[in-house]
Amino acid sequence: MTTLLPKLNSDLGELADRVRRSLVQVSVGRRGSGSGVVFSDDGLIVTNAHVVSGGRGRGSQTNEFQVSIPGGTVVKAVLLGKDDGIDVAVLKVEQAGGQPPKLFPIEIGDSTSLRAGQLVMAMGHPSGVAGAAVAGIVIGAGPDLPEAPGAGRDWIAVDLALRPGHSGGPLVDHHGRLIGISTIMAGLEVGMAVPVHVIEEFVAKVIAGNPSPV
Amino acid sequence: MTTLLPKLNSDLGELADRVRRSLVQVSVGRRGSGSGVVFSDDGLIVTNAHVVSGGRGRGSQTNEFQVSIPGGTVVKAVLLGKDDGIDVAVLKVEQAGGQPPKLFPIEIGDSTSLRAGQLVMAMGHPSGVAGAAVAGIVIGAGPDLPEAPGAGRDWIAVDLALRPGHSGGPLVDHHGRLIGISTIMAGLEVGMAVPVHVIEEFVAKVIAGNPSPV
Amino acid sequence: MTTLLPKLNSDLGELADRVRRSLVQVSVGRRGSGSGVVFSDDGLIVTNAHVVSGGRGRGSQTNEFQVSIPGGTVVKAVLLGKDDGIDVAVLKVEQAGGQPPKLFPIEIGDSTSLRAGQLVMAMGHPSGVAGAAVAGIVIGAGPDLPEAPGAGRDWIAVDLALRPGHSGGPLVDHHGRLIGISTIMAGLEVGMAVPVHVIEEFVAKVIAGNPSPV
Repeated sequence: MTTLLPKLNSDLGELADRVRRSLVQVSVGRRGSGSGVVFSDDGLIVTNAHVVSGGRGRGSQTNEFQVSIPGGTVVKAVLLGKDDGIDVAVLKVEQAGGQPPKLFPIEIGDSTSLRAGQLVMAMGHPSGVAGAAVAGIVIGAGPDLPEAPGAGRDWIAVDLALRPGHSGGPLVDHHGRLIGISTIMAGLEVGMAVPVHVIEEFVAKVIAGNPSPV
Repeated sequence: MTTLLPKLNSDLGELADRVRRSLVQVSVGRRGSGSGVVFSDDGLIVTNAHVVSGGRGRGSQTNEFQVSIPGGTVVKAVLLGKDDGIDVAVLKVEQAGGQPPKLFPIEIGDSTSLRAGQLVMAMGHPSGVAGAAVAGIVIGAGPDLPEAPGAGRDWIAVDLALRPGHSGGPLVDHHGRLIGISTIMAGLEVGMAVPVHVIEEFVAKVIAGNPSPV
Repeated sequence: MTTLLPKLNSDLGELADRVRRSLVQVSVGRRGSGSGVVFSDDGLIVTNAHVVSGGRGRGSQTNEFQVSIPGGTVVKAVLLGKDDGIDVAVLKVEQAGGQPPKLFPIEIGDSTSLRAGQLVMAMGHPSGVAGAAVAGIVIGAGPDLPEAPGAGRDWIAVDLALRPGHSGGPLVDHHGRLIGISTIMAGLEVGMAVPVHVIEEFVAKVIAGNPSPV
């Protein structure tokens, strides 16, 4: 045997470690939670819209969120904007007095030129397992994935198993760069993620003060 | 981190690109479709027998098939032979006047010396996702796989999730060489493929004018 | 393409070959069976407690076990100790007269410093497929996996599909060193293994003559 498997093992572990620095857990009031990712060093957190909606009961919506950052610190966050159509939400960590928490934003990748066969890793907090990692390859990407919900929407389909707590967590490429947000399963062993170019567009709208109605 | 993951990523993507040149979609009349693979440059296409049978309703059998080749061109094909016992069918692309379509036959691999742990990739059109790729490893191969249908038949069991549209599509080794035709799932996360040595034997019979009755 | 995929393919196959030398099948009387692993060259075999209990019918317990070692030889074994709480059992191969069977104990790895993203391979005899291999990565490890049965128990969660016959079989790292015993699935595509440090502790107790009651 060559030194390939030890190297591969070490690089995969390092990739997970790198991404985990930007991985957060998002809780809504006292209810269940999902994952999220640090998008900018001034405190923007990106997750799924269905995570901040608590999954059900829109009447019980709130604008109080807890974000658990790596190291275990829990900070408060407010919702800047969400779009249920693309299932994306943008939170901002509040820096209520004193020292703001140190955040490590994830490096942004390119989701417009993905090709089938590429390596991907999804991280999240499925059922409370902190910093869990699953790896696989890109099945396909683009607006023409017939299994995906929402006609004409861009998706990334990946060959790995996402679980509820993965929702809102980062899907990264082989460099640990964000290429999407893990969102749903579309059938056995097919995970679907919102591409990062769709997310960047929405974040820009939110920053420009033109978010979708919260 | 070393340069290993970028290389692995690039090589997996290139592997998928290479196989995709020989990947076709097979449609039966107006009904559902499956995948197939270009077996020779004179127009032989190999797929599953259950793909050309349309899955059900033998009374509605037809000898009119549409084969969608890479690039999107759709050509007509006729059924040269099929064997429901091994679930293999051989089509021939018709060259009705004018320029015959340019076909890229897949390189043929060796399915008689597979060992557990080997890398494999399956490509197909699951639920219409064009050129989708999933990767995994060989679980086991040979005639003694108790979960496989058909006593004493040769199968390749692979650690990946095949979906309906994968049926008839190529299962390749790490060089992109054909080692089998993706056929069914035998339980969760266990894909079964007809080994290419079984297919070659049947193609030879068909070419020799001695096919199984269509 | 580089030489990476052929090397990876070859090393994965070699890894499986290496582990298979220590992989055994454990049968209980005439009933179903599971997998096990050779733990020491003096004939200790480790498996799951639920494998030696035959899965049900404690009233029909027996101390007669058949262990099928690589090469196909079947030898008798006795139960030295089992602990249903951690689901681990220790058997000892009997050397009833003549030549003792040649056994290849597996190399013992480190399950106390696993990190998410690491490579793992599970081997076993799922549904009778001899020496089957599946590969994946570590999702997480430790005593705080909420999905795992048994509060406060150590587990390794892995991103691969275990099937019934995997029970008791080795989960190894990228060097083929034992890091756990494949035990159960905790939801789709999440396999759970008892870490080898838990097993070593129990084996030491058993050797010291202080096993849990059989």
